[in-house]
Amino acid sequence: MLVSIMSEISRSSTRLDQYVDRYAARTKGMTASEIRALFAVASRPEVVSLAGGMPNISGLPLDIVGRAIGDLIKTNGPTAMQYGSGQGTPELREQICEIMRMEGIDAHPDDVVVTVGSQQAVDLVTRIFIDPGDVIICEAPSYVGALGVFRAYQADIVHVEMDEHGLVPELLEQAIAATKAAGRTIKFLYTIPNFHNPAGVTLSAERRPEILRICREADILILEDNPYGLLGFDGPPHRALRADEAEGVIYLGSFSKTFAPGFRVGWALAPHAVREKLVLAQESATLCPPAFSQMAISAYLEQHDWQGQIKQFREMYRERRDAMISALEDMMPASVRWNVPDGGFYVWLTLPPGIDSKAMLPRAVTARVAYVPGTAFYADGFGTSSMRLSFCYPTPERIREGVRRLAGVLEQEMELREMFGATGSIPTIARSRYDGPGTDMA
Amino acid sequence: MLVSIMSEISRSSTRLDQYVDRYAARTKGMTASEIRALFAVASRPEVVSLAGGMPNISGLPLDIVGRAIGDLIKTNGPTAMQYGSGQGTPELREQICEIMRMEGIDAHPDDVVVTVGSQQAVDLVTRIFIDPGDVIICEAPSYVGALGVFRAYQADIVHVEMDEHGLVPELLEQAIAATKAAGRTIKFLYTIPNFHNPAGVTLSAERRPEILRICREADILILEDNPYGLLGFDGPPHRALRADEAEGVIYLGSFSKTFAPGFRVGWALAPHAVREKLVLAQESATLCPPAFSQMAISAYLEQHDWQGQIKQFREMYRERRDAMISALEDMMPASVRWNVPDGGFYVWLTLPPGIDSKAMLPRAVTARVAYVPGTAFYADGFGTSSMRLSFCYPTPERIREGVRRLAGVLEQEMELREMFGATGSIPTIARSRYDGPGTDMA
Repeated sequence: MLVSIMSEISRSSTRLDQYVDRYAARTKGMTASEIRALFAVASRPEVVSLAGGMPNISGLPLDIVGRAIGDLIKTNGPTAMQYGSGQGTPELREQICEIMRMEGIDAHPDDVVVTVGSQQAVDLVTRIFIDPGDVIICEAPSYVGALGVFRAYQADIVHVEMDEHGLVPELLEQAIAATKAAGRTIKFLYTIPNFHNPAGVTLSAERRPEILRICREADILILEDNPYGLLGFDGPPHRALRADEAEGVIYLGSFSKTFAPGFRVGWALAPHAVREKLVLAQESATLCPPAFSQMAISAYLEQHDWQGQIKQFREMYRERRDAMISALEDMMPASVRWNVPDGGFYVWLTLPPGIDSKAMLPRAVTARVAYVPGTAFYADGFGTSSMRLSFCYPTPERIREGVRRLAGVLEQEMELREMFGATGSIPTIARSRYDGPGTDMA
Repeated sequence: MLVSIMSEISRSSTRLDQYVDRYAARTKGMTASEIRALFAVASRPEVVSLAGGMPNISGLPLDIVGRAIGDLIKTNGPTAMQYGSGQGTPELREQICEIMRMEGIDAHPDDVVVTVGSQQAVDLVTRIFIDPGDVIICEAPSYVGALGVFRAYQADIVHVEMDEHGLVPELLEQAIAATKAAGRTIKFLYTIPNFHNPAGVTLSAERRPEILRICREADILILEDNPYGLLGFDGPPHRALRADEAEGVIYLGSFSKTFAPGFRVGWALAPHAVREKLVLAQESATLCPPAFSQMAISAYLEQHDWQGQIKQFREMYRERRDAMISALEDMMPASVRWNVPDGGFYVWLTLPPGIDSKAMLPRAVTARVAYVPGTAFYADGFGTSSMRLSFCYPTPERIREGVRRLAGVLEQEMELREMFGATGSIPTIARSRYDGPGTDMA
């Protein structure tokens, strides 16, 4: 049954399309991601999905949210249901500035643009800066949704490696130098400094000024994507890159993980001139973000102890992180490695050489466990021997059961590999630390 | 006071922008529209705004909406506040198909994509089809928000004239032939067949099969934008172009005018292969449209007599249309002409030769009345001697007062013109019926 769904998914993409000659060049880069195909399968109840990045919002106080929104309709319904400003409501932009203050950011509401989730912020920033063939520097691996946007705008991606302290400054410098030497235009560095998706690592405090300096000297903007910043398991929030550099950084935030994603409210904080362009781009894209969503979030922030709620979220996610790490320690074959994230949603698994996580996926789903293969997070085909596991949504018990199933599949794969050789395509050469602009993005 | 605001607006666009060399080529086409600059001024209470296109939603039953959304949070909160499908919720897509049935459309929910207002549908369709330099055929005049999107994707616009029966088939054929003869690629015809924004006209039933035939034979898609289709003042809704041609038409609809714009929910109905691309583009743009907005609209449609509500809206708008037309008849100088729309929000005014509506705008705002100059609705600089008046938002009394003020300003302008010559730039040659791709769009 599950296997037949998997083959259905791969079939649907080969359906005849009579419009194929009319699409824009950028449309050729729009293909269904691994995550997309997975959603259909992994949402079946018998499958433990360690694939999705859905926050667990079951702890939200529905009575309080319901009352706040009910009051909103009663007292302010005609405004909440009307068109609003393309930049977003002034009240929410002020609240956003308060939230960002927790990460050391001193910003004016006038420089904030509300977006339809921070995904749309990535889209709008890319729209105003990227011409086809421009280079965007990304961590290796990087967020699949951002890579999709960059591809849709025909950017070339240069990946730069991370280690356990996040992006490696020396490698960033080398990548910039090599890209510039090749005559390419670098428009920005896209980075997720905190509790990285998918890698789970955090950029160390020591490296932050270095990254800022490198980009300032190279005259490269930084796109700081920070959806998980308030979801650290230890200590206060990390200081944002934007806190120490107002002109060179565009900062992206989101309510999807600290409140709820169903309202689709995120934001960009940008230098003033860029903010003006972002508002024009937003007006062109949607006229304005939903007033109702924005005012609902404002009412929630005003009427609820939202910081206490985030604390609850943090504790819940820490418990699930712990469940996943202890299950991995108990059950994974010795040759599998992973990191221990101190916040966010994700653990990054590195498999023994020769195991192809993408080729293995149908067998894992048949064993009723799902994950995202590492290749989804690279623009250049790397990542075959890694995978992202998310601990955000399933209960600790289900996480443990999912890891048990995954360990079983991996053991089988490793046995097969010992008997018959590789299970799928294996990179035959080691990846160099810097590969130059990915040619498969054109 | 008002005059100083006007000059502030024009100053802000000349502010120094240190990022100017880094923007994408498309960003050069993103400039503040006349409508945008107007919003700041025309929203002051002493100004009668005949400029905006805000629907009047004061008639919505806030108690029913409040109860429906309250129940939604109680019974379905965790789903409504979670990420959803990139295509939109199945329930809403079914309801959308029921609504479209009123215009003769027989569609499957699987071919509907929910968007963040129908503005986003225009954006996503343009995104998947338009390469820089591709041609889009538009009515003359056309919707300012669509022209902005087309400009942002670096399309060239070819305008085709309308008469009182809408788009003129012979002129469409000529424009297609001339554009093809010039070696240009036409990607689609963008048309608003019903209660046109801004022209107020409706494509006649006789011409609809002709437009379909012309586009089918020329192998050009039709983008049928229909936000006002259910807001006709006489008789049943007009039959959609999409009702008679499933493969060649992408149909756009919206809840902004039949319910409320603050939820930002619109949709595209597209041929199956195009729908797949639209979903990918939507996922890249926002991951998914807001689940909360969609489920709120579903609850409203299910629990309220929404057709009765639309009937109320129609009657209210008809009363305002009547107020505007009778005020125009009573007060406008004899040389001013206008049409009488039988639905929608807008009247299109044609001024005597030599009166420049854009140059006159600051004087009108000083006299506390606002409108949108005709040039906003053309990609090629035409429209100087026309303007759009909207009757959707102000009360009949305010409409009459606004027309009175506008008539006063116009009379002064005409007197000045008689004494001193033109008030602004006048087109010195008559516009030919077909001008070729607009070169000012590059």
